[in-house]
Amino acid sequence: MVVMQGEPKSNSAPSGDTMIDSRFAQTPEPPYYAVIFTSARTFGDNGYGAVAERMATLAKEQPGFLGIESARGTDGFGITVSYWESVEAIGEWRRQLEHLAAQESGKRIWYSQYELRVAKVERAYGMRETEQQAAAD
Amino acid sequence: MVVMQGEPKSNSAPSGDTMIDSRFAQTPEPPYYAVIFTSARTFGDNGYGAVAERMATLAKEQPGFLGIESARGTDGFGITVSYWESVEAIGEWRRQLEHLAAQESGKRIWYSQYELRVAKVERAYGMRETEQQAAAD
Repeated sequence: MVVMQGEPKSNSAPSGDTMIDSRFAQTPEPPYYAVIFTSARTFGDNGYGAVAERMATLAKEQPGFLGIESARGTDGFGITVSYWESVEAIGEWRRQLEHLAAQESGKRIWYSQYELRVAKVERAYGMRETEQQAAAD
Repeated sequence: MVVMQGEPKSNSAPSGDTMIDSRFAQTPEPPYYAVIFTSARTFGDNGYGAVAERMATLAKEQPGFLGIESARGTDGFGITVSYWESVEAIGEWRRQLEHLAAQESGKRIWYSQYELRVAKVERAYGMRETEQQAAAD
């Protein structure tokens, strides 16, 4: 038996005074799928920024897309996690034509290394600022 | 049937002329578990840097630990993914005493928001610079 700290994540809309931080994905209750993409960028933009932005827009239009979170440090190492309803939805996204072209440029130009992991999210927990204030009181 | 691009990840040691980028976790063949921790930092260090470093050291000594990857942008939004042999190993780490204290400080001081997801990694793929050069040829 695994005991987790914190409150189980609620699916309900936040109350009126809660600030929404759009950098966090608003995912439903598990189970769902995560694609964990870790990458090291090569030097120079080489068209990366525009295509990355376009891919994020395109992903959001894909069936089964649930959300995306992304962070990259100044050293060029980054992690992007996208969330999906099913492995089938992930497969469709991987075979999307414009995305296939971007994947090719990723291999040839933008990344010195990357790792891609497909994982089934089984549990999810979180904390927002309002809870932080309550904990500090 | 999901068709994935790229070569399945090899467990074998890299050949002599391959550069190892230690920012990437060296994980075994799936299945194994991932803890996806996304967080937004509050302003100021407030002791965070030293404790984060200590926690990474401590995690590496835990039974069942497989690896860790981390990225944080200049906006304070970060993603840390740690990899584990089992959910039991994750539970042990969450209950580790020094880690419990750090989790408390995380809630009270360091994070304005965080989300924690436990996921079972089912597939893993990757590319390293040597393959990139081959693709460019």
